[in-house]
Amino acid sequence: MTETTTTTRPVTIRDDVVIGGNDITLILGPCSVESYEQVRAVAEVLVAHGVRLLRGGAFKPRTSPHAFQGLGREGLEILRAVADEFGLLVVTEALGVEHVPLVAEYADIIQIGSRNMQHFPLLWAVGETDKPVLLKRGFMATVHEWLMAAEHIASRGNERILLCERGIRTFETATRNTLDTNAIALVKATTPFPVIGDPSHATGRTDLVIPAARAALAAGADGLIVEVHPRPEEALSDGQQSLPLEQVPALVDAARRIAEALGRGVPMPATR
Amino acid sequence: MTETTTTTRPVTIRDDVVIGGNDITLILGPCSVESYEQVRAVAEVLVAHGVRLLRGGAFKPRTSPHAFQGLGREGLEILRAVADEFGLLVVTEALGVEHVPLVAEYADIIQIGSRNMQHFPLLWAVGETDKPVLLKRGFMATVHEWLMAAEHIASRGNERILLCERGIRTFETATRNTLDTNAIALVKATTPFPVIGDPSHATGRTDLVIPAARAALAAGADGLIVEVHPRPEEALSDGQQSLPLEQVPALVDAARRIAEALGRGVPMPATR
Amino acid sequence: MTETTTTTRPVTIRDDVVIGGNDITLILGPCSVESYEQVRAVAEVLVAHGVRLLRGGAFKPRTSPHAFQGLGREGLEILRAVADEFGLLVVTEALGVEHVPLVAEYADIIQIGSRNMQHFPLLWAVGETDKPVLLKRGFMATVHEWLMAAEHIASRGNERILLCERGIRTFETATRNTLDTNAIALVKATTPFPVIGDPSHATGRTDLVIPAARAALAAGADGLIVEVHPRPEEALSDGQQSLPLEQVPALVDAARRIAEALGRGVPMPATR
Amino acid sequence: MTETTTTTRPVTIRDDVVIGGNDITLILGPCSVESYEQVRAVAEVLVAHGVRLLRGGAFKPRTSPHAFQGLGREGLEILRAVADEFGLLVVTEALGVEHVPLVAEYADIIQIGSRNMQHFPLLWAVGETDKPVLLKRGFMATVHEWLMAAEHIASRGNERILLCERGIRTFETATRNTLDTNAIALVKATTPFPVIGDPSHATGRTDLVIPAARAALAAGADGLIVEVHPRPEEALSDGQQSLPLEQVPALVDAARRIAEALGRGVPMPATR
Repeated sequence: MTETTTTTRPVTIRDDVVIGGNDITLILGPCSVESYEQVRAVAEVLVAHGVRLLRGGAFKPRTSPHAFQGLGREGLEILRAVADEFGLLVVTEALGVEHVPLVAEYADIIQIGSRNMQHFPLLWAVGETDKPVLLKRGFMATVHEWLMAAEHIASRGNERILLCERGIRTFETATRNTLDTNAIALVKATTPFPVIGDPSHATGRTDLVIPAARAALAAGADGLIVEVHPRPEEALSDGQQSLPLEQVPALVDAARRIAEALGRGVPMPATR
Repeated sequence: MTETTTTTRPVTIRDDVVIGGNDITLILGPCSVESYEQVRAVAEVLVAHGVRLLRGGAFKPRTSPHAFQGLGREGLEILRAVADEFGLLVVTEALGVEHVPLVAEYADIIQIGSRNMQHFPLLWAVGETDKPVLLKRGFMATVHEWLMAAEHIASRGNERILLCERGIRTFETATRNTLDTNAIALVKATTPFPVIGDPSHATGRTDLVIPAARAALAAGADGLIVEVHPRPEEALSDGQQSLPLEQVPALVDAARRIAEALGRGVPMPATR
Repeated sequence: MTETTTTTRPVTIRDDVVIGGNDITLILGPCSVESYEQVRAVAEVLVAHGVRLLRGGAFKPRTSPHAFQGLGREGLEILRAVADEFGLLVVTEALGVEHVPLVAEYADIIQIGSRNMQHFPLLWAVGETDKPVLLKRGFMATVHEWLMAAEHIASRGNERILLCERGIRTFETATRNTLDTNAIALVKATTPFPVIGDPSHATGRTDLVIPAARAALAAGADGLIVEVHPRPEEALSDGQQSLPLEQVPALVDAARRIAEALGRGVPMPATR
Repeated sequence: MTETTTTTRPVTIRDDVVIGGNDITLILGPCSVESYEQVRAVAEVLVAHGVRLLRGGAFKPRTSPHAFQGLGREGLEILRAVADEFGLLVVTEALGVEHVPLVAEYADIIQIGSRNMQHFPLLWAVGETDKPVLLKRGFMATVHEWLMAAEHIASRGNERILLCERGIRTFETATRNTLDTNAIALVKATTPFPVIGDPSHATGRTDLVIPAARAALAAGADGLIVEVHPRPEEALSDGQQSLPLEQVPALVDAARRIAEALGRGVPMPATR
């Protein structure tokens, strides 16, 4: 196969943030929205480091029905309130077709989770909204199936799609998943969609998040989505893979160094 | 780990067919409902061989949005009409939460597809119906995740669950998937749910369907779900893995021989 | 793909035992040869049930250099002495090229282990002996690579090859490996080589060995290789997957029932 | 799991080249040694860009026995002659125990191939030489098994081991293998061995080699081993993944930029 010449088509959100341009985009936040105080604590750190996108889960898909399933609408209200207070944009997941109108009302970017990558009715539903979609790759999906899922969304008229590589399932058990940097390089080179790397789910361990974030960017990712938490040890979900807020500066610095090595950048915080 | 003593809890449908008892249950039909004539041709062969369950897809989840997506409600009406005419029961898939009421109106057993095994809102929705659920294992789901998905259904009050092993995704490319007979033996030994094997999707090739059907039963499956078609070469989906109707007698005979070797049986056709 | 018509070419050993004919062949023995008494205890049970092939490891490939590595030449001498005493044939592994002459001197069938399936110098070395070769499939080898490995052996003049499916590595962790019954059916249908199933390594758990043995035979295997031990709980290797000798009758009975369902048989013990 | 503090123990070769120190090490050369002219053409480019390690295969493990198996001793002689002429060091594979003395005579670093990672007699044999060993991870090996293989080598007295991640086998078919950058980060953080990334085998396609090289270094690799060829389209093996010599400057530049972002460097060519 040969060098490709596809150029990424940037996605602009609220005439404000551009994803897929020269700058790297960071999307940070807790796995689950747990409280107003929790989200506010995260937002303060984001603003201090120039991060504009706040992620958080209000509806949580959990393997066990007995695990915390999220705050639902209250979680969305918390995200929106804190985001508006700090001038941030919200990325959050729609778990089912029935949630799409509600999520679209509160979110700036609608996330489709890994387990739902081939839930076609949901893809069609977000394809009929005017919100950008962060499409997580199924942990069992080939690159071909991932792009076909994007095609399901685009077929309903919404082409503002962000492809998110979050690790695939392999035989390796030392890490939660295997970050597929080959896939990042491949979709970056062969599709017009911006690519986001998720080092949190791809590794499942805090100590590997920053190296994996570097690898995703070096492979060509246009951004990163990373789970952070004020007190990971108390998180209601994914604590073992969440970065404590104290490590956000190290993450931003690592991303900036790799971005600059590639002739790209990471936005600086607005001066107050 | 040690020998287990769990006993299968049979699921009775319409006070008529029992799945998970001493007899093996066969569920046959086309991948997609294409026409009344097609389904009727299949039904005649089923009745002639004592098969009581008719499968067929009305809503088809397809990797590409440009592939045939099924006849929808019309497909359900065809299945019901033919089933009632021949005294058969209907097994068909609900693709999304929004389809559940409609599918529940026409089907005797609601199927959850492999791609939807972790679409929790759909699991909750079928968990609130009074219809038995055929839960296909996700092609990249561990046995633990599969049983947790069953738990999501049961948590809403519906414990009439049939676990269907339909092959998992591995590195092997000579077959579409890898039939996990270990998993069949394991869930049969450790859960109360009847287990169904799907040799069609597990192999993806007609020439391996009967050997795979034998293997599934030998591992302990209580039944088989097999794709058959009057003219596989003209099928709108899965033709390469559908058995032509002429091979139904060989399939039923193979199943009966293995069943008898295990002290079980396969129902004989009703004498007219 | 279409039905195939390849016929298995039986392999005859010492003008005595035929593998790949109408009868199913059982190959039983301990993972590791530990002592003369241990092997003798196993042999007595084999003879009592008509089993003619004794397996046992003298050179053990172990993941850790600190694990028991086998008795070496002494193990071979024990196997040969016991086999001759009871009129059995010996199947044992050659771990490296340098062991081939020694193993060929003591064994009736030389085993190539899963980890060595693509160790080409070893394949060439056994290809130059006059002993039948039991070629275990690599646990991450495609069917194509497995058949190419057989081709490496055959290319040196030795076509008396037995293909052994012993489970492949997948994402599933509930079992040690995943028995690939599709592969058994495929190589049985498309190659002239007899096929042996290994339910011990394929499951890694004693309670699943018999169901997996049934599945392998139902898929078309010409024989089974199974780890048995007088006291699995004291075994120096693979105890958790070894059948205690008390379960040999159940294994032989299960194999016979499936064999007969397929129009095949399992030899009865010689009457004394 | 928590942050680790293991420090890499550099490996020095011929009191000349240090691997695992602050500088990144590049190891370039053809998959197979085909001729003196071919290797010489490669060496000239290496020297021009400050690359000190020349790789090349003399004994080639090939899936098919009918594929080119390498030039053998003649290949070793060509590598040594060209390396001495240009002041380079040689990295080449020992395919079997029987080749170790010969390879040790010509090579500066002995490579153990992916298919041989668990061929223990070979690990023991190189463990008894005084040459550093480049241990490729089996494409099917867990990180634990990979480190146990290193332990087999070290158990014989040789601790000068370089761990090489060359991609693992997964369900993805768009690339030859999946580069496991998580594993690079993990072994870098938890073992004393230098880590080398192999973007050629990890991707299997020329157009992804440079992005994968960047990702490996960003994850923490101490070096890269890359297949290059004067005319990839005429290569006797691996042409589809070999970089043409014209792309060596781009590779070296990409490596240098990432290295510098990490506070490391890539040696500059000696001024003549």
